[in-house]
Amino acid sequence: MSVNILFAAKESDWSEYEAALATALGKAGIDFNLSNSQSADFSAAETDYMVWSPNSVVQDFTPYTRCKAVLSLWAGVERVINNPTLTQPLCRMVDRGLEEGMVDWVTGHTLRHHLGMDAQILGQNGVWAPQTPPLARHRQVTVLGLGPLGSACARMLRQVGFDVAGWSRRLKDIEGITCFSGADGLRDALKRSEILVLLLPNTAQTENIINAETLALMPDASFIINPGRGPLIDDDALLKALDTGKIAHATLDVFRVEPLPGTHPYWTHPNVTVTPHMAAETRIDSSAEVIAENVRRGEQGEAFLYLADRKTGY
Amino acid sequence: MSVNILFAAKESDWSEYEAALATALGKAGIDFNLSNSQSADFSAAETDYMVWSPNSVVQDFTPYTRCKAVLSLWAGVERVINNPTLTQPLCRMVDRGLEEGMVDWVTGHTLRHHLGMDAQILGQNGVWAPQTPPLARHRQVTVLGLGPLGSACARMLRQVGFDVAGWSRRLKDIEGITCFSGADGLRDALKRSEILVLLLPNTAQTENIINAETLALMPDASFIINPGRGPLIDDDALLKALDTGKIAHATLDVFRVEPLPGTHPYWTHPNVTVTPHMAAETRIDSSAEVIAENVRRGEQGEAFLYLADRKTGY
Repeated sequence: MSVNILFAAKESDWSEYEAALATALGKAGIDFNLSNSQSADFSAAETDYMVWSPNSVVQDFTPYTRCKAVLSLWAGVERVINNPTLTQPLCRMVDRGLEEGMVDWVTGHTLRHHLGMDAQILGQNGVWAPQTPPLARHRQVTVLGLGPLGSACARMLRQVGFDVAGWSRRLKDIEGITCFSGADGLRDALKRSEILVLLLPNTAQTENIINAETLALMPDASFIINPGRGPLIDDDALLKALDTGKIAHATLDVFRVEPLPGTHPYWTHPNVTVTPHMAAETRIDSSAEVIAENVRRGEQGEAFLYLADRKTGY
Repeated sequence: MSVNILFAAKESDWSEYEAALATALGKAGIDFNLSNSQSADFSAAETDYMVWSPNSVVQDFTPYTRCKAVLSLWAGVERVINNPTLTQPLCRMVDRGLEEGMVDWVTGHTLRHHLGMDAQILGQNGVWAPQTPPLARHRQVTVLGLGPLGSACARMLRQVGFDVAGWSRRLKDIEGITCFSGADGLRDALKRSEILVLLLPNTAQTENIINAETLALMPDASFIINPGRGPLIDDDALLKALDTGKIAHATLDVFRVEPLPGTHPYWTHPNVTVTPHMAAETRIDSSAEVIAENVRRGEQGEAFLYLADRKTGY
């Protein structure tokens, strides 16, 4: 008998999720009947699983008497965990895809600057101009911020071969990575950052951490990659450092104001690449796989992944 | 006492090697006196080590009576190993840098196409156009050729997260890589190659292996990366496939004629990136490290690396 799965998240996301969920459920070997709220041929009482997000039309879970689990598409469940009508198990979304996508993006742009790819991508002028970049192991890359995303990126950059250092507020210990912390550590980390990756959280301590003073510590003609938070950078100071060549190029994915206004000087600076906050997106495919895995677990009587705890609230 | 090291390779390479050798010897903790043949302040009889290549002015090794080793900058030693005046130990060059550089270049350009970087690098037009690339593990990459370079690249692409297959004449077994061989295997390998990397040797069997028929097997809008050999590709067939969009982009590092003539259509095709045979160069830095390590070993009485064997000839 088919498992009735109701997509009761944001209605406009249905068109994107329908195929991904069908694929993931099929791969998980589930005989499913998947529908959104508007076109379901099964009733609330016949629903076996609900895919849900806080912006759902469903806020009263009482009618879903047979529902084995409410599967959130969001990581944060603070808006629903205390809903008194929710008696079903609630599972958070932990999307490996967000971290993986960040690692792909950071590794790709680090290699791009390391190899000097733009010279060829932008310079198809018929002139054969041999150049040999250094090896990755002779390139010093520094990652500011060693939380889950920063340390995942640092580890991958190390695996690719780069000479990697990292800096964090509290000293970390990561195999193969030279770890720095504190104010003196920041200076040492910046002094060796031929390519600097920003993955710090946005706090009062980190705002404008990249400013005229800290930029001056970096090696000449170095690169900045910011997939972290816009306010980490003093934009005027960075533009000045780009003009003097102190910074050879900045690839920026996040900004104080997004979308970045079309008149912002970053768009026209020849040594800036603006990317449209694409480094870390929740991925439909990998989220759908988490949903499918939890349906599979439910059907086979196994423990759910990422089951929310009503005591701790997450 | 300083170790007298004579640079007796190609004279025009001295300017590039001098600093790299000095750095590497310094790092190896050697108290050295390094000079080229023209400016040496020590005699042939006072030479402790000789850095050498077949195009050296030194072809008679008799005067170098104290020389503890002749350290070749070339991998192949067939032009010197039977020289009757060469009684000193002879060491070949095994440059990790060539393989590492290839892996850097292939990984970088694979990530570039995977992430669709060119859209941002070439399109800084003030328009914020969000896009989310698939995750690396949802991207099928195929490497044709699983020799030392091909398998090193396949392994790294797998480590980065890609879904990697490889094809070789004889079936290989590489952990994490879907391996194909033979004619049927080639069809299967091409059918799943969203990004195709060519690292085959140039033989009668591999010439024009990428032709109208094999291009037709590839997924629509796929990518070709060729750091292998120019003749692997039927250039006219590739240009046609680029024109129809069957192939979204080709990044080519090697060509039938090099330097690629300025009038070749590859230079002006909007979906081709020509790179100037830069993917696999012998690296001065890594070669210098091998030389320094062998000097260190000689001074400390340890066995030399890559000691040539006069019986086998290599």
